[in-house]
Amino acid sequence: MQEKGAEGIKVRWLIMEDDGAPNFAMRLFELEPKGYSPLHSHNWEHEVYVLEGNCQVSCDHEKCTASAGYVTYVPPNAKHQFVNVGESKLKFLCLVPHH
Amino acid sequence: MQEKGAEGIKVRWLIMEDDGAPNFAMRLFELEPKGYSPLHSHNWEHEVYVLEGNCQVSCDHEKCTASAGYVTYVPPNAKHQFVNVGESKLKFLCLVPHH
Repeated sequence: MQEKGAEGIKVRWLIMEDDGAPNFAMRLFELEPKGYSPLHSHNWEHEVYVLEGNCQVSCDHEKCTASAGYVTYVPPNAKHQFVNVGESKLKFLCLVPHH
Repeated sequence: MQEKGAEGIKVRWLIMEDDGAPNFAMRLFELEPKGYSPLHSHNWEHEVYVLEGNCQVSCDHEKCTASAGYVTYVPPNAKHQFVNVGESKLKFLCLVPHH
């Protein structure tokens, strides 16, 4: 994925509408050290589970760091960003409703 | 969770409707060695990601073994069961639409 404001990030769609999934999709994100997703918002939510590495999550006016086993919920319309603040690869699952 | 036909299994709801999630829920399943979920079906799907251990997944007439990093999609109305066929704890995420 290359979009404005994203750097060092790959997205793999693991389960999606084309597989017959009727409601939501499972994606795997991999961010290189210092990689980040765009700071943006949209009208669907994210359900995130961190698999490896250290993720700084910004969500509206909050910031927290999530490592393996941590869960983050990003509500619809929240302005959010994921940054790899560790020295190794960051991997997380990010699930979204079909939109 | 204790229901007929389940053994050695714990479910933790990580993100759910009460958290404001509008569409689907994230649950963490932990199965002891030889533990299993009930063999059953229902009209909603599962999106599964294996975190640790070895899972035998039955889905209608198919069976496969899934270890860490494997993904399984169980369609609505498929008869399915998850069995810990390893010697260590089995952990997987299982996401479902609100139902």
